[in-house]
Amino acid sequence: MKIGRQPFRSSAISSSNEETIIVRGHDLCAELLGRISFTDHVWLLVTGALPTPAQRAVLDATLVAIAEHGLVPSVQASRMTLAAAPEALQGAVAAGILGCGSVILGASEAAGRLLVDVLARAAGAPSVDEAARAAVRVELDAGRAVPGYGHPLHKGRDPRAERLIEIAAEVGSAARHVEAARAVARVLPVLTGKPLAMNVSAAIPAVLLDAGYPLLALKGVPILARTASLVAHLLEEQQRPIGFVLSHAGAEAIEYDGEGKP
Amino acid sequence: MKIGRQPFRSSAISSSNEETIIVRGHDLCAELLGRISFTDHVWLLVTGALPTPAQRAVLDATLVAIAEHGLVPSVQASRMTLAAAPEALQGAVAAGILGCGSVILGASEAAGRLLVDVLARAAGAPSVDEAARAAVRVELDAGRAVPGYGHPLHKGRDPRAERLIEIAAEVGSAARHVEAARAVARVLPVLTGKPLAMNVSAAIPAVLLDAGYPLLALKGVPILARTASLVAHLLEEQQRPIGFVLSHAGAEAIEYDGEGKP
Amino acid sequence: MKIGRQPFRSSAISSSNEETIIVRGHDLCAELLGRISFTDHVWLLVTGALPTPAQRAVLDATLVAIAEHGLVPSVQASRMTLAAAPEALQGAVAAGILGCGSVILGASEAAGRLLVDVLARAAGAPSVDEAARAAVRVELDAGRAVPGYGHPLHKGRDPRAERLIEIAAEVGSAARHVEAARAVARVLPVLTGKPLAMNVSAAIPAVLLDAGYPLLALKGVPILARTASLVAHLLEEQQRPIGFVLSHAGAEAIEYDGEGKP
Amino acid sequence: MKIGRQPFRSSAISSSNEETIIVRGHDLCAELLGRISFTDHVWLLVTGALPTPAQRAVLDATLVAIAEHGLVPSVQASRMTLAAAPEALQGAVAAGILGCGSVILGASEAAGRLLVDVLARAAGAPSVDEAARAAVRVELDAGRAVPGYGHPLHKGRDPRAERLIEIAAEVGSAARHVEAARAVARVLPVLTGKPLAMNVSAAIPAVLLDAGYPLLALKGVPILARTASLVAHLLEEQQRPIGFVLSHAGAEAIEYDGEGKP
Repeated sequence: MKIGRQPFRSSAISSSNEETIIVRGHDLCAELLGRISFTDHVWLLVTGALPTPAQRAVLDATLVAIAEHGLVPSVQASRMTLAAAPEALQGAVAAGILGCGSVILGASEAAGRLLVDVLARAAGAPSVDEAARAAVRVELDAGRAVPGYGHPLHKGRDPRAERLIEIAAEVGSAARHVEAARAVARVLPVLTGKPLAMNVSAAIPAVLLDAGYPLLALKGVPILARTASLVAHLLEEQQRPIGFVLSHAGAEAIEYDGEGKP
Repeated sequence: MKIGRQPFRSSAISSSNEETIIVRGHDLCAELLGRISFTDHVWLLVTGALPTPAQRAVLDATLVAIAEHGLVPSVQASRMTLAAAPEALQGAVAAGILGCGSVILGASEAAGRLLVDVLARAAGAPSVDEAARAAVRVELDAGRAVPGYGHPLHKGRDPRAERLIEIAAEVGSAARHVEAARAVARVLPVLTGKPLAMNVSAAIPAVLLDAGYPLLALKGVPILARTASLVAHLLEEQQRPIGFVLSHAGAEAIEYDGEGKP
Repeated sequence: MKIGRQPFRSSAISSSNEETIIVRGHDLCAELLGRISFTDHVWLLVTGALPTPAQRAVLDATLVAIAEHGLVPSVQASRMTLAAAPEALQGAVAAGILGCGSVILGASEAAGRLLVDVLARAAGAPSVDEAARAAVRVELDAGRAVPGYGHPLHKGRDPRAERLIEIAAEVGSAARHVEAARAVARVLPVLTGKPLAMNVSAAIPAVLLDAGYPLLALKGVPILARTASLVAHLLEEQQRPIGFVLSHAGAEAIEYDGEGKP
Repeated sequence: MKIGRQPFRSSAISSSNEETIIVRGHDLCAELLGRISFTDHVWLLVTGALPTPAQRAVLDATLVAIAEHGLVPSVQASRMTLAAAPEALQGAVAAGILGCGSVILGASEAAGRLLVDVLARAAGAPSVDEAARAAVRVELDAGRAVPGYGHPLHKGRDPRAERLIEIAAEVGSAARHVEAARAVARVLPVLTGKPLAMNVSAAIPAVLLDAGYPLLALKGVPILARTASLVAHLLEEQQRPIGFVLSHAGAEAIEYDGEGKP
């Protein structure tokens, strides 16, 4: 069954023969292996070019910032899955990644779109703050939470967000998207009456978009970072299992309110 | 429902309060962010300690080596999944990771177990080759393929395997597991009569185990590396979609041999 | 970390003690097992009550209609995944289910929302056709495909859609949502100039919503039906594997157009 | 890249053209839709033939028996995943299915293999009990739990197991695999000194194998049944969300025992 028009029939990422593997135009074994870091390789894979030192620094910082934050829902889902299905580590990693969605880790992409929208509006607006106000109002009027602001634990400020923007400034990469993210942070408490500080999910797109990382691959950054964390948690789960402790505590917290309690 | 004995009730990976996030004993924002690379962070998360330069070099090399190899089955599964469900990039990544199994990318762990077995046998054997011969015979007698040797494309030699071992030697990390992997490479063609060269899935555990990376987290290395590659492919899939071209070609290659062809 | 307000702390689906399992108010072993069909149980689980004969007939028909349609993308993703990771059948099923997205099988829910919208508009409109016209225009103006109409293979008519509506009429269940689905089918070719016939993904919500099945569980019907089909394909994959034939054909169909072809 | 020998290039499950869809040799719309139940269709898809009344009764009973058992780990993983990623119901279902592994729901297949082994040994043994004793000893000597016996909640007896075997007897389908399952139930407490009663994961393969259902598709039965339950839980999760209550309770149950508590 032919689905859709299918106008494209090629890929520009990798090619190989018996002796050689080409990745993004480079001979993997002769030019890349042993010479570049994994972060360089991530940038190369995603963008097609090796990063500048500033780009590498920003990507490293975002990946380190978002990798680990304790027993978050996706980590718990992953550890329970390994406890139930220890034969498939890849299945437990996949279960964890499936929780990188619009509410939790995937907010990076939505926040990135917001920053792009702010900058598009800024072209014809008296100030970036005015553009931010207009963009935020669209979200609020639609009854949506503004992605990348406010955090259930880090209420006053998210230390990761501030540090990421600091690093981007240090390496000379912070520019208009960071400015837009700060403008949203200024107008949001006024518009909502709530102390919603910028969190890591707005800082990540701010610094990455300024560095030239593509918008449509933003969600990949928390997914990649969390995969590293899941591997660590799944090693611990094999050595000191808590998957069924987590599910036991979860079940105990919920009451049955249907009919015919046994 | 309480499942199992549940002797453990703690985790040593991360803790946090409103101001501070601790990861493996380090203040994430004050000590790690902006100072370490993502590869350092992966090593820290998995092992609990920051890597030496040699450990970092080996982990970087393995991640770069295994990240990308063109339109392999897991990449195709992932791109088809995004074509059908573009609303969930995380679902497409998960579908790709689910193909990191015992036959394809997960062979790293099985190969790692084989190398550990060879070294355990070497303690009481006249030579490592003799130990390798005994360990390989167990696999062959059980009718199993020896994990990490032979490759559908790189038949004569897998250039990634050789380069990884070269890098491990350059940084002074290559040791007994590399020796075991080479011993298997020597005895295998003799025992099977087939030119089965060491592939990347034997070289990865060889250099990582020598560097002190834990056996039970080996499968995480190809999974993490492939996640980076999947992000690149899924960006391309959004820009130049081929998911349905792949499925169309797949379906055309298969005949219906059931009853009542329409 | 407490995420969100968490106003609910109960579930009404099942409870149990050492001797008895209650499902939706019924003693599973004494009242349900051996007395009801799986389709009855699905309806009971989802809605909280056992189905009438008409409801059972409609749910059976939709599940049978959507279960299988050959080597569609999700089936190929699933079979490739099993070929690569034969140790985890559940992983291969999961990979297949991840392809039940907004473009392919998940269109049922989007089509259901459209039908609900048509009926809401019909309250104040001169005719259902007029309401359908207004609802469809919203989709077209937004540049979206109208979900549930047109099919890559069944261009003139989707035989499953017609048969489902026939069955709903036979059991006396077809009502206003079917009427809405037909109204869309009438106005759509006029508005688009294209012969877009009602497909199975519009017929499923039409007959299920008329039968009283909840809108928010509509996506579960193709997912459940496809799971049955995936089990059949994965049994065949174990007996006559084609997973790597599919990926080989897919890769052959794509050209490398990056730099440095090896 | 051509992986493996690829001796097969066909599938016998479905074929279609613009007007007609054939499933297992039947015209889907003309012969199946509206005439058979979903359970009939599952049997047809998996085995290639429509079931007898006894086969249908047994398959219905096993699917009803295993579908739902409260907030088990896979349900919690699924509900947490939907809470974090509400845009992808299919991702939450997939996360739940990934927990159908060797320890929890996938035990059906392992138990089925045990029963087949018992019957193979019974051919040359003085009694089925003697064969069961030998087969169980292999498991115990290898340090493995005997799959399908003992349950964390239903300690004295699993009411589902007894009812399933009763139903199989009523429809005249219970035969040698049920006999083998009972033999294991007799010898196991003697060999282990523990009151390990037959649970649902041994009863399912016993009655299904007796009915002619294929061993290699056994794991599909709990996976299919649980998918129905997951759809019900995910509907409830949309209406009365508890996903983050579950993860909050889980995290509270675990202490941080790493260095540098904040």
